[in-house]
Amino acid sequence: MTSIAMIEAARQRIGNEAVRTPLLSSPFLDAIAGRKVFVKAECLQRTGSFKFRGGWSAVSGLNREVRNKGVIAFSSGNHAQGVALAAKLHGVPAVIIMPNDAPKIKIENTRAYGAEVVLFDRAKEDRDAIGEKLSAERSLTLIRPFDEPLVIAGQGTVGLEIAEQAKELDIAEAEVLVPCGGGGLTSDIALALEAKAPGLKVRTCEPEKFDDVARSLISGKIERNVLLSGSLCDAIITPQPGDITFPIMANLCGEGVVVTEDEALKAMVLAFQLLKIVVEPGGAVALAAALLHGAKLQSETVIVVASGGNVDTDIMVSALSRFA
Amino acid sequence: MTSIAMIEAARQRIGNEAVRTPLLSSPFLDAIAGRKVFVKAECLQRTGSFKFRGGWSAVSGLNREVRNKGVIAFSSGNHAQGVALAAKLHGVPAVIIMPNDAPKIKIENTRAYGAEVVLFDRAKEDRDAIGEKLSAERSLTLIRPFDEPLVIAGQGTVGLEIAEQAKELDIAEAEVLVPCGGGGLTSDIALALEAKAPGLKVRTCEPEKFDDVARSLISGKIERNVLLSGSLCDAIITPQPGDITFPIMANLCGEGVVVTEDEALKAMVLAFQLLKIVVEPGGAVALAAALLHGAKLQSETVIVVASGGNVDTDIMVSALSRFA
Repeated sequence: MTSIAMIEAARQRIGNEAVRTPLLSSPFLDAIAGRKVFVKAECLQRTGSFKFRGGWSAVSGLNREVRNKGVIAFSSGNHAQGVALAAKLHGVPAVIIMPNDAPKIKIENTRAYGAEVVLFDRAKEDRDAIGEKLSAERSLTLIRPFDEPLVIAGQGTVGLEIAEQAKELDIAEAEVLVPCGGGGLTSDIALALEAKAPGLKVRTCEPEKFDDVARSLISGKIERNVLLSGSLCDAIITPQPGDITFPIMANLCGEGVVVTEDEALKAMVLAFQLLKIVVEPGGAVALAAALLHGAKLQSETVIVVASGGNVDTDIMVSALSRFA
Repeated sequence: MTSIAMIEAARQRIGNEAVRTPLLSSPFLDAIAGRKVFVKAECLQRTGSFKFRGGWSAVSGLNREVRNKGVIAFSSGNHAQGVALAAKLHGVPAVIIMPNDAPKIKIENTRAYGAEVVLFDRAKEDRDAIGEKLSAERSLTLIRPFDEPLVIAGQGTVGLEIAEQAKELDIAEAEVLVPCGGGGLTSDIALALEAKAPGLKVRTCEPEKFDDVARSLISGKIERNVLLSGSLCDAIITPQPGDITFPIMANLCGEGVVVTEDEALKAMVLAFQLLKIVVEPGGAVALAAALLHGAKLQSETVIVVASGGNVDTDIMVSALSRFA
């Protein structure tokens, strides 16, 4: 079980290796949302998403002998890049297992960070089985994307920063909207805020058809998605919430908010125009919830996590042409 | 004469009203440049450019009676928005004189921040004369975009942050590349770095045909541009360096670097793809210098200021289609 002490230890290990991403705002976004909106721009994190924090935390947390044999991870792309760069900066090998429909930019970047990329078919193959097999064959340490305490501790540093930045801005109460896949980032932020800023309450945000967490929070048990691929929100498409993350979310998070893919694209365009940041579709679902599903929110102020920015250029251009 | 004490006083007045913008990096940018590149992302500042700092510094620095009568500014758009928002947050009226060829987004946003916008013809009319007339008629305080000590002090807070952030990253020596119009931001950063990080040396960056500062630094006296409009780099097109700013630049800055408009657009695209930030053409000239004019630079590490992000969407889409 990840504790606030583990999150603080991860921050010590991370030091200045990760960017302290800013909390951005625009009066024009506030006007659209009908409340104050602050955006934690983790798309500006190294490798373009918060996943670098967890990657660094996990790789730096291994003992040297184990680490030197190398690490392995499976990921649609952001965890891939986070682990690949963390491994490179530690001078150790990394193998990354990626779905063959992941955005090109993510596959190319993961290779460019020096990792060996193994592609698989998301609809037909089981990435966990592939990961465990390769891990055993080559004595690599498997770094799971969310159900892994050291990774959770690293992502939790986003929550520590939100708590501090909210305090700087005199925000004592707010809903914190988080794009949610397996629940790693969400539960990690919730743990950090429970300890450091109890007036900030996490809400999960997901795209339509991939709302496993929202449904699980209602039923009180882990629910699966029927579909496992076919969304532009690739970063947060996972089969179901994690075994470690779900109980944390069930304990600490409010009701989930579900948005359409077009709403995520509209939020991307508004973030581009008004905040000057590039957000990927999956990273924009929380902003979409804040701007377009205000009736489901209660607080006067919302803090939105923009979790990643690794979008193929043609998807951004298409979104701009439709919604700008 | 603006001193480091004035810059530090401006920072006190600004407090948490301005974003402490991050210093971003990407190993892919380093590979292109052949050296370490860090980007100070002032496009993420409130109103989309560093100008909010100077606007806030100036408006907050007026005595209350004077401030309550209102302020006036002339600007191609970024200073306009900075002063407009600062005035709005202080609850005082603002009149902004803008060239009629300024980007639509800048004119619209300035109005949306609550200012009264007066348009003029950049090629035929003298904005200074218009500003002084309106200022006298309505008892408004004129806030000049660069030759104004309180504004300079506010922009200088960018330099204070660069000095601190360089220290956090153990950068003791670097060239600091700054997009340069009238020389406000450039001289302000140079003053702050002289006091706080003397190993960091400022270099001015300008677009072709509007290289008044580079030529002035060579000749040792203020040189004018022949053209006064017709560049996508509208943010940094001024007739000549300022009377206050030029002596500071002549004293503290290295040789100027000049880039083409297409190079600025390429840098915009790379910033979009690799740093997940939206930079306007004028704000991207320093990044263009770092990436594409490396032979003119000496240091192993460069710090680049991306000074603004207020680009019309169609210009960004066009740049992406040409260079992505």
